Amino acid sequence: MEMNELQTLRHSASHMLAQAVKRLYPDTKLAIGPAIDDGFYYDFDTEHTFTPEDLEALEKEMKKIAKENLKIERFELPRAEALELMKDEPYKVELINDLPEDATISFYKQGDFVDLCAGPHVNYTSKVKAYKLLSATGAYWRGNEKNKMLQRIYGTAFLNKADLEAHLEQLEEAKKRDHNKLGRELELFTTVDYIGQGLPIMLPKGARVIQLLQRWVEDEEQKRGWQLTKTPLMAKSDLYKISGHWDHYKEGMFVLGDEEKDKEVFALRPMTCPFQYQAFLNRGRSYRDLPMRLNETSTLFRNEASGEMHGLIRVRQFTISEGHLMCTPEQLEEEFKGCLELTNYMLTTLGLIEDVSYRFSQWDPDDREKYIGTEEQWNEAQDTMEKILKDLNIDYKVGVGEAAFYGPKLDIQIKNVHGKEDTLVTIQIDQMLAEKFGMEYVDKDGTKKNPYIIHRTSIGCYERTLALLIEKYAGAFPVWLAPVQIKLLPIADRHLDYVYEIKKQLEANGILRVEVDDRSEKLGYKLREAQLEKVPYMLVVGDKDIENNTVSVRSRKEGDKGAMAIDEFIKAVKEEIDTKRI
Amino acid sequence: MEMNELQTLRHSASHMLAQAVKRLYPDTKLAIGPAIDDGFYYDFDTEHTFTPEDLEALEKEMKKIAKENLKIERFELPRAEALELMKDEPYKVELINDLPEDATISFYKQGDFVDLCAGPHVNYTSKVKAYKLLSATGAYWRGNEKNKMLQRIYGTAFLNKADLEAHLEQLEEAKKRDHNKLGRELELFTTVDYIGQGLPIMLPKGARVIQLLQRWVEDEEQKRGWQLTKTPLMAKSDLYKISGHWDHYKEGMFVLGDEEKDKEVFALRPMTCPFQYQAFLNRGRSYRDLPMRLNETSTLFRNEASGEMHGLIRVRQFTISEGHLMCTPEQLEEEFKGCLELTNYMLTTLGLIEDVSYRFSQWDPDDREKYIGTEEQWNEAQDTMEKILKDLNIDYKVGVGEAAFYGPKLDIQIKNVHGKEDTLVTIQIDQMLAEKFGMEYVDKDGTKKNPYIIHRTSIGCYERTLALLIEKYAGAFPVWLAPVQIKLLPIADRHLDYVYEIKKQLEANGILRVEVDDRSEKLGYKLREAQLEKVPYMLVVGDKDIENNTVSVRSRKEGDKGAMAIDEFIKAVKEEIDTKRI
Repeated sequence: MEMNELQTLRHSASHMLAQAVKRLYPDTKLAIGPAIDDGFYYDFDTEHTFTPEDLEALEKEMKKIAKENLKIERFELPRAEALELMKDEPYKVELINDLPEDATISFYKQGDFVDLCAGPHVNYTSKVKAYKLLSATGAYWRGNEKNKMLQRIYGTAFLNKADLEAHLEQLEEAKKRDHNKLGRELELFTTVDYIGQGLPIMLPKGARVIQLLQRWVEDEEQKRGWQLTKTPLMAKSDLYKISGHWDHYKEGMFVLGDEEKDKEVFALRPMTCPFQYQAFLNRGRSYRDLPMRLNETSTLFRNEASGEMHGLIRVRQFTISEGHLMCTPEQLEEEFKGCLELTNYMLTTLGLIEDVSYRFSQWDPDDREKYIGTEEQWNEAQDTMEKILKDLNIDYKVGVGEAAFYGPKLDIQIKNVHGKEDTLVTIQIDQMLAEKFGMEYVDKDGTKKNPYIIHRTSIGCYERTLALLIEKYAGAFPVWLAPVQIKLLPIADRHLDYVYEIKKQLEANGILRVEVDDRSEKLGYKLREAQLEKVPYMLVVGDKDIENNTVSVRSRKEGDKGAMAIDEFIKAVKEEIDTKRI
Repeated sequence: MEMNELQTLRHSASHMLAQAVKRLYPDTKLAIGPAIDDGFYYDFDTEHTFTPEDLEALEKEMKKIAKENLKIERFELPRAEALELMKDEPYKVELINDLPEDATISFYKQGDFVDLCAGPHVNYTSKVKAYKLLSATGAYWRGNEKNKMLQRIYGTAFLNKADLEAHLEQLEEAKKRDHNKLGRELELFTTVDYIGQGLPIMLPKGARVIQLLQRWVEDEEQKRGWQLTKTPLMAKSDLYKISGHWDHYKEGMFVLGDEEKDKEVFALRPMTCPFQYQAFLNRGRSYRDLPMRLNETSTLFRNEASGEMHGLIRVRQFTISEGHLMCTPEQLEEEFKGCLELTNYMLTTLGLIEDVSYRFSQWDPDDREKYIGTEEQWNEAQDTMEKILKDLNIDYKVGVGEAAFYGPKLDIQIKNVHGKEDTLVTIQIDQMLAEKFGMEYVDKDGTKKNPYIIHRTSIGCYERTLALLIEKYAGAFPVWLAPVQIKLLPIADRHLDYVYEIKKQLEANGILRVEVDDRSEKLGYKLREAQLEKVPYMLVVGDKDIENNTVSVRSRKEGDKGAMAIDEFIKAVKEEIDTKRI
């Protein structure tokens, strides 16, 4: 209910924005201006590039329009008259021409401003009181990069000022937590123009977090009976022809060479499946070998346009914990549950589980070309997955047409700090590819059968997980993941020897990651910097500490904790690490 | 002395082989037949493809020739007469024509067989008593693949039968240890035609060994102050143009896209250098930041021809512990020594140190095009390296023209089981690339300087190291590296519960890697199989063990060790692992 009211208000705000633009830039041609999840936008065709100052001026003009308290009225026209009315607005003409023969063509009018629009709207411009223009950016007409680049202005509007303020504060907070900003500030990663977009460089601190995550995932998977593989990052086109990727996914792959010129053409892999299958295919298999669980810390490549790249989230190269599980039909349900349990355990440990939602991605029977396999196979696989999800009481949404080309998926979705949803983890059921690759096992009755294959990840791709963790914890990682866990801060140079002695103790047996701030700066300055670097523990060392063989502990979260014996401190931190406390 | 005698003998053996071939296949045209390191070969142009049976027949014919006790005589001819004598041997004609104007043209004759040859030879065919033909293979005339493919027969000869026998035994042993054979048998790795040559697939056992090595290397490097990075596997051509690789190494790279057609052209990286430099370049640096030691578990790509690929040794993709160290001139010597110490520690731990030799790879001042930088810079870098090597008393050979294009190298060489030498580890001094990439630090005096860079690896590439370890230990890895450390062998099915209980105990805390052989096979059969799989410990479990809460321990190396309490056994194995006992 409230959402519809809000959408109506935002839609009216977008019309008022368009009216303001027309007043200040009369030559502008109007494209479209819908309400969206968090506000609204309007696309304009103009030579002018909108600056932050322009947005302020436009906001003022909108305020005027609100004050004028114009009545917002709907009217309808037959097609010919509609086209005549809009004859100076080429985008509106295109939209009218695209409407079906029998469509009602409606307009909304406020003062001298008229827009082609289905509505609804608020009835007076004075109703739109709490709004804000946020940013201007380029956008292709109809989202197609072959069309003209237009100017898009984003804004938001709320029913009252308090809601608007709260939202703007939230945006401000999100900006601060944005992994693409914070991750660079904390020296976790960077990108470099001459290397390329979507190819992030993990600096020592980011590389350390990824190493810790990776070892944890590999060890946990090993405990649960997964066998590690390490397979090549490229293959001849022959492989992708068998898998179907050459026909169904070639656009998304980096291809090395030219089939018309070269004897051998290779492509970088966009997935691990047929590489990992080779471990199954390495010798004859029987039902005794099943389930066979194979995992890999796998680097994949996707050939995407530079414009689409974003921080650690949209990248050309990423590393993922990818696994394939070969099993009999009888084992499928339990093994699927095992995969889901594994991922739940991991997301819970990382503190991300509360932010996820589930999506059951199905095929689209009306778009057969996108998929391999028969309708019967699809129904069987989807029925099985549905049964499992119901058994587990999982609350999911259905996404028709979102399956992989070889089978249905359970996608575990997560929103980033800006509210944008992405897939974090996916678990898929596949009864097609085993046959394509000749994967068989001898069953108890002596007959040869193709196994079911579960494609799954457990933690998703490490780059994306790192981005989510940066945003979740605003860069202040749980101690077990913090790249630097302890910063030692001597008060004066005469404390340095003792400090390095303590460093040795803390680092013994590779337990803790420690840095010393040995600069001749004031303690307050050093503390502030360590705080900004989001180091979990700062140990201050002065005369008294040396005398008593202690350190003065400051926790990033809990502040001053007073003097502690080193052993005592190590024991407490070690416990925090061992339990992976959040 | 002896070596020359041996070479002479082998050269005569090759003539006897050629004579035998001419007798049995009179249409054959002769190419060349030199003595080589371990024996000799002769290349023939014939329609016939030599089989193992043919080699036996040829050996018999050689025996006859030896029995005939033909005198081997040298004579010389003027060019025209030489050409006339060889008119039916087109390859010999080509060789004569290639001889300088004033060359002496000599021949060796035994019975009715004459060959163009510089000699020397033994004086009677009866001298060649201990010889063996080993294999036949294809070889291009003059090693150029544009020329005709000839048939090459390899053989060996020794001064006496005992030496020959010893050598043949050694060859037999080498064949058994050959990583490309044994590594597949032990299911460490495989290759697949439709994926491609030089792209080995690590099966679970091989992937485990590599994981263990990698974690050990990363941890050891961390302890010694190296900071981990994780950088992208590809970059835009722009990067390689700065580094010089686009001009000096493009042939060896996999290029994605076409500079004439595509907006952005990427290439897979053949090295980590300029990627890792970004961690240095991420902010301003001062002398206080130096030395900065960066390491990475880095995957690299080399575009080599399919024919050159071999097992895990010659590959298109490999993973290496690659590091770059930025330092001041004053720090260079100590840091270089630190790098060498690190690698010595690793090769000693792996038991490989006794097999290595050192090579000081220098530039070739007569081939300036291959290198960047001035003569002065090269002399300075080479003098520094020479001083360090002398200081460390390292016994090295010099390789002129074998430097990297940006600086001299210390190459640590190792021979594989067949005696073929490869570079395992390299440590390089570079004073050129820092300037190219704008890497600077502010020195104590406030001036900006380019750091020296040491390029180094510590353990070499993991695939090659794995190959060497397979051959060194004939697949029987030290316990800490064994993919399966313990195999549990219940004598009867009634012992299974107890066996699984023990498995849990052994695996607790992720200490040990254990498998159960639960098949209903005889104990002897299970033991033989575990032995073939080179599992270090086999624990047999029967009624008595259950009664006494023990296991009956069989060590792969030491045989039956009797009954042991589980705790006692765990303690002993754990100690073996912790000390990385060879």
